[in-house]
Amino acid sequence: MTILHLPVDRAAGVPLHRQIYEGYRRAILDGRIRPGQRVPSTRALAEDLGVSRLPVLAAYDQLLHEGYLAARPGSGTFVSDAVPDDLLRSPAPAGSRPRPVRAAPRPAPRARDYGGLGPFRVSLPALDQFPHAAWARMVARHAHALSHAQMAYSDPAGTTALRVAVADHLRTARGVRCEADQVLVVSGSQAALRITAAALLGEGDRVAMEEPGYPFARAALGANGAETVPVPVDEEGLSVARLRRSERRVRAVYVTPSHQYPLGMSLTAARRFALLEWAARREAWVIEDDYDSEYRYVSRPLGALQGMDPNERVVYIGTFSKVLFPALRMGYLVVPPALWQRFMEVRTTFDLLSPTLYQLVLAEFLSEGHFARHLRRMRGVYARRRAALLAGLARHCGGRLTVHNADAGLHIAVLLADGLDDREAVRRMAARGLTATALSPCYADQARARSGLLLGFGGFTERRLVEATRVLGEVLGGSA
Amino acid sequence: MTILHLPVDRAAGVPLHRQIYEGYRRAILDGRIRPGQRVPSTRALAEDLGVSRLPVLAAYDQLLHEGYLAARPGSGTFVSDAVPDDLLRSPAPAGSRPRPVRAAPRPAPRARDYGGLGPFRVSLPALDQFPHAAWARMVARHAHALSHAQMAYSDPAGTTALRVAVADHLRTARGVRCEADQVLVVSGSQAALRITAAALLGEGDRVAMEEPGYPFARAALGANGAETVPVPVDEEGLSVARLRRSERRVRAVYVTPSHQYPLGMSLTAARRFALLEWAARREAWVIEDDYDSEYRYVSRPLGALQGMDPNERVVYIGTFSKVLFPALRMGYLVVPPALWQRFMEVRTTFDLLSPTLYQLVLAEFLSEGHFARHLRRMRGVYARRRAALLAGLARHCGGRLTVHNADAGLHIAVLLADGLDDREAVRRMAARGLTATALSPCYADQARARSGLLLGFGGFTERRLVEATRVLGEVLGGSA
Repeated sequence: MTILHLPVDRAAGVPLHRQIYEGYRRAILDGRIRPGQRVPSTRALAEDLGVSRLPVLAAYDQLLHEGYLAARPGSGTFVSDAVPDDLLRSPAPAGSRPRPVRAAPRPAPRARDYGGLGPFRVSLPALDQFPHAAWARMVARHAHALSHAQMAYSDPAGTTALRVAVADHLRTARGVRCEADQVLVVSGSQAALRITAAALLGEGDRVAMEEPGYPFARAALGANGAETVPVPVDEEGLSVARLRRSERRVRAVYVTPSHQYPLGMSLTAARRFALLEWAARREAWVIEDDYDSEYRYVSRPLGALQGMDPNERVVYIGTFSKVLFPALRMGYLVVPPALWQRFMEVRTTFDLLSPTLYQLVLAEFLSEGHFARHLRRMRGVYARRRAALLAGLARHCGGRLTVHNADAGLHIAVLLADGLDDREAVRRMAARGLTATALSPCYADQARARSGLLLGFGGFTERRLVEATRVLGEVLGGSA
Repeated sequence: MTILHLPVDRAAGVPLHRQIYEGYRRAILDGRIRPGQRVPSTRALAEDLGVSRLPVLAAYDQLLHEGYLAARPGSGTFVSDAVPDDLLRSPAPAGSRPRPVRAAPRPAPRARDYGGLGPFRVSLPALDQFPHAAWARMVARHAHALSHAQMAYSDPAGTTALRVAVADHLRTARGVRCEADQVLVVSGSQAALRITAAALLGEGDRVAMEEPGYPFARAALGANGAETVPVPVDEEGLSVARLRRSERRVRAVYVTPSHQYPLGMSLTAARRFALLEWAARREAWVIEDDYDSEYRYVSRPLGALQGMDPNERVVYIGTFSKVLFPALRMGYLVVPPALWQRFMEVRTTFDLLSPTLYQLVLAEFLSEGHFARHLRRMRGVYARRRAALLAGLARHCGGRLTVHNADAGLHIAVLLADGLDDREAVRRMAARGLTATALSPCYADQARARSGLLLGFGGFTERRLVEATRVLGEVLGGSA
């Protein structure tokens, strides 16, 4: 129960009880307080307004008498559910300023599930396998122990413990060459992309993007007026030769070397060296989005591009969304020392820091080994889910699609047989409860777009995945 | 303990045990794994590499023998603390690519307290009065009960429950005219400003700012290449007459009508109507930053500017940082319906959603009345702290400063006597443990800047405030 914002004025010619009555009546009529909402006790209201209880009692008495308020013995006084509709729709009382008439309140917005969370939703980890109880215990413990300093403002770069833990993890597991003072903790990888764009790219700058590429990265990198230049990928990843032939100066290039989004291949070692040499010679920055590098099924991972670069021209982006859970909203940048000051300035115009509670929990989760243990356990889980998806596709969808790449990550890319439109397929799948992602919107050049689907398997059990491939087969109208 | 990223290749001419030995040796020498860091058990490593234990045992044996690793019986195997410095500083082994030599790891970054948290720090609420135990219990309960859907992606606008609760609160307490479907939950008011800037302002657009004004708002609004146009404030707030005389088109104007930042006055009713009429006629947007409107000591608050606008041209920004605690990082926008789609597009390029756990906790905190109760209790707390600060200033600092405005909010603005430089005063105060904010950097036009201080009183007890004014008096070298 919030106290109504109600300006009363002792000096006005109108008696206080009348001002209070009129204030509440108007607030009810124009919907600022709604039927069923509780109003304060006369004592609380009098105290809040700094007046005696008498005018408040008089005003409430009249509001009750006229049916605007209703008393429920034992639980307080409420705006009446029975305020007649015609009263609610009446124009505002004379003397008030004109307002747009908004008769009945709009219904509360329905929660959207952000495109659906059905089988094949990409970027969804195995939430059923998350060590939920241990995590919740840590959250509870840190929430109870939160100090005043931890509730206040703190270092925009992140807590020291978390930055050290992230640097240790990245050096060891991903071969990233970094110190903790290069780690910038941010609110997820999308925020990291947006901060990188603001730090490196301005109006008229050019940034090279994988074609096809991650649409949200394209939106973030182009948001400040930079031009995104598509550079094709082939089976070895980004075509550095095509990048080299680009005549106008490119200030940065965005790549997903571990697991190309959307197509799934990894950037070969030869291409990596070529890309880093190009960046050094052209003094361009490389933005490495290592969004789901942790899982690889076919061969050992190559490690991060950043770790191969002697010239410190790589901005490295990682996220906890795909290893832990998306609603956590925590990610990080590893920033070359020469850019650190610039990134910090930009970061503080975006948001001053990331929530401290989750930083404390994450630092413990990493440094106490829970994170590494979870990662290792998930390798087996995802290998089985991937195998189930591939088997299901072979059984139910053969002939209508071909698997393009399934070496790594939490989704596989498939290409649809000629004549099948991927957006239409996604719509029809949605009607059957499946949340696939179309490949063609990942192309900047729609004329060259291939028709395909990204099928996420991380968030679904083997049984659900096989069942989903059966439905997919029906939707595509094909059989082996 | 994370497993080292270690590419082994059965097909290579080098035996596996040699590859593993060489991989670990290099990782230790170039600092990817550090003295004292634990290495995995031979069993775990063999499993992870997909090789038998024999080559792993052989490699570990050699590493132990050469002193790179050390076994601690009962607790595992670690990188030796005694790896000689000259080894660590040696160039990388032949055949590896050149890298910048970074001999010893840099020390872990020291935590910065973001400009200090001593007495007079602005924007700091009474953390000692926060209902910490009740809040922590709610956090713990929601953390334990978090469903899979709540761990996944969800509506970028925020959870329905929180949007409804925010809309109810704003309608009732601030006179904001809004429905829940206009509420966009974001990561604090800085994020709200940056999203607003990206939604409304592009390269070459002009946005009017209060002069003096909030420097972080100026940075956020100008970040995409928009030009900020300073418009002076006087005792009635922003000079709408000066805004009207501005010849070139201004696309938006940023105001803090409830409590002007930094000077503290509120925008008068006459100016409010004039501003809204100007905005309607010029089809400009008004960005209302209601950052600490909840507390007013002198008269009843005027309510939000947004609620007086029949034309839906106001973008309203609020935050929980100053009512609850800053490290929460939660704020919200109330967006005019005509701009909703645009704001949602921009928001998803920034960060996909705000952390769900805190959204659930906040929704309960608001709808169960904890929030309103806390607000009401804090009114008395802040009134007493403000009075203590004013009394202390009168006693210890008279003659060296004059109080400019102390009507509202969590800080008061004072002007320094002629000849006192506010930045120098802030530096000298910092040396005595005080965290004041200088007024002059709030001016875009430094030639007209006044010398003054913003003295936050929300986060400090009466005793600490009085003691701090005594120190301030000494620093300013004055006496009554």
